[in-house]
Amino acid sequence: MPTQNNQQEKELPQVLILRTTFVFQLYEKEFHKKFKVLKAWESPLPIESFIESEAQNVEAIFCSGLTPITKDIISQLPLLKIVVTESTGLEHIDMGECKRKGIAVTYAGSVYAEDVADMAIGLVIDVLRKISMADRFIRNGLWPSGVQFPMGSKVGGKRVGIVGLGNIGLMIARRLEGFGCTISYNSRKKKGSTPYKFYTDVVEMASDNDVLIVCCSLTEQTRHIINNEVLRALGKDGVLINVGRGAIINEDDLVECLIEGEIAGVGLDVFEHEPNVPKQLFTMENVVMTPHRAAFTKEGFFDVFQLVMGNLEAFFSDKPLLTPVPVPIANE
Amino acid sequence: MPTQNNQQEKELPQVLILRTTFVFQLYEKEFHKKFKVLKAWESPLPIESFIESEAQNVEAIFCSGLTPITKDIISQLPLLKIVVTESTGLEHIDMGECKRKGIAVTYAGSVYAEDVADMAIGLVIDVLRKISMADRFIRNGLWPSGVQFPMGSKVGGKRVGIVGLGNIGLMIARRLEGFGCTISYNSRKKKGSTPYKFYTDVVEMASDNDVLIVCCSLTEQTRHIINNEVLRALGKDGVLINVGRGAIINEDDLVECLIEGEIAGVGLDVFEHEPNVPKQLFTMENVVMTPHRAAFTKEGFFDVFQLVMGNLEAFFSDKPLLTPVPVPIANE
Repeated sequence: MPTQNNQQEKELPQVLILRTTFVFQLYEKEFHKKFKVLKAWESPLPIESFIESEAQNVEAIFCSGLTPITKDIISQLPLLKIVVTESTGLEHIDMGECKRKGIAVTYAGSVYAEDVADMAIGLVIDVLRKISMADRFIRNGLWPSGVQFPMGSKVGGKRVGIVGLGNIGLMIARRLEGFGCTISYNSRKKKGSTPYKFYTDVVEMASDNDVLIVCCSLTEQTRHIINNEVLRALGKDGVLINVGRGAIINEDDLVECLIEGEIAGVGLDVFEHEPNVPKQLFTMENVVMTPHRAAFTKEGFFDVFQLVMGNLEAFFSDKPLLTPVPVPIANE
Repeated sequence: MPTQNNQQEKELPQVLILRTTFVFQLYEKEFHKKFKVLKAWESPLPIESFIESEAQNVEAIFCSGLTPITKDIISQLPLLKIVVTESTGLEHIDMGECKRKGIAVTYAGSVYAEDVADMAIGLVIDVLRKISMADRFIRNGLWPSGVQFPMGSKVGGKRVGIVGLGNIGLMIARRLEGFGCTISYNSRKKKGSTPYKFYTDVVEMASDNDVLIVCCSLTEQTRHIINNEVLRALGKDGVLINVGRGAIINEDDLVECLIEGEIAGVGLDVFEHEPNVPKQLFTMENVVMTPHRAAFTKEGFFDVFQLVMGNLEAFFSDKPLLTPVPVPIANE
């Protein structure tokens, strides 16, 4: 452990945070009990100068998925041994550089998966049964006016195609089985362990299904995988849900298909240019939108907080990390 | 079968409809293919005069849950032998009078139950995960403003108390098990066939649970069963869902508890004075409202249409009715 200047904090190991995170905002007090936290974002210095003057002895960085841990940052921290991220995604971390330098990376594993799956189901029901639209209808005082509120569509019996059958996709599938839906999926490869029909081709899956749920990760292979062709194959009664990443869908194509009535409705937790959402969606009744909150619950963040603390404590006491990034995921 | 004056329609048996219904609006053409429909609501005559001049030979009435079939109406139809309602509820039919006169009653049975259960789950997820609120947040352009959208609460792990464990209640319970919720229930009597904890007392159940879902029928025993005491027992983190009937909740008590922050949120498909909703709810962020649409899906109404036609055809061809009201339900 690095030596400390401050007498009061000499026992506490240093953790560098470049930019505040959700977990840190919620549990800052707990962090201060166990670590000397170096808060780069509160310093008037530019990050590079802050690191140079304050963080040369840092062995551990804690970050969210919104803070890039680049090769540059890593090169400025000669003693860096671990990156702890509160995210499941690793797109913000230069994993190759970490591997090359022997820097461990821990992540949130599948902690958020249940919450994301729940949100996906919530969006499916909301779009099919027009819940947010109905809430708007009532708040606008339209119920007593005699305007007929349109009929929704039944969840049970729907054929649902899942794009990406990882942890989240499997949890979505299991929940939907309880509603009487028929599940199929598209994925890089067929999963031997599931009873669901596998499609190699997303267009074919879209044309065979009533609902598409996107919950794969964003890679060069999945970017814009949901395009005009897929949406038109899904069809005029089809519903699209996205709890993955915005850029998996070609948003221009989506807006066009919605304007032209080529699909029936969408539920979107993620967007291509967050926090900016295409304005055309704001007035559409068949669209339900949430601001990238599928993984956000108080209970989920408490679980992640415990993982983050557990990983940092394990690192500083030379114990096995709780959720190191497994090599196959890091190499994906 | 009654004799008919109109030569063209002489083969078609008469069905009297006092006021149009959802199923009739959707499938009117199909009705005309098989029946001579007497549309009382389209006549300039008052109902009594219409019945006296046009419907004296009527053996079958078809109605929705919104058309009272009173003792008076029944007494004006000397040949009435069957009441076919598209509803599951029977509150609008004088069942005692039907029984006394040997008039059969058919209803929608459990056709709507799945859709109501789905809506209940949709409302649970929507309230806990703030979906409609999030949709409003985005449509109001608040996401890029930097205003922090509040965290939702996890569905999994919630203790859910179901008020009324009939068809709908059981379907709700099964769905919620898939989300990792713990189920208990209150009902007139303990059900031997379920693994769920039984409460005789709603206040006790409310204080032991995070979410209460009301899906019992409205009777003198259940009217205002959800009152101030129950809501305060449910508590400041508690969520209330109602897909039963509005008057099961004391709406004044509910509004008061919401204003005072005594409960965390509500999802309401039904209201005490429909289509009027307490205006105070219109501006509350923790309230999700739908205009009594839990049972309304295109697919569900098609199923009910088929039951209605099947019951009428069975009656006119002396075959067993598809969904006669069972005596225990009618006597409840």
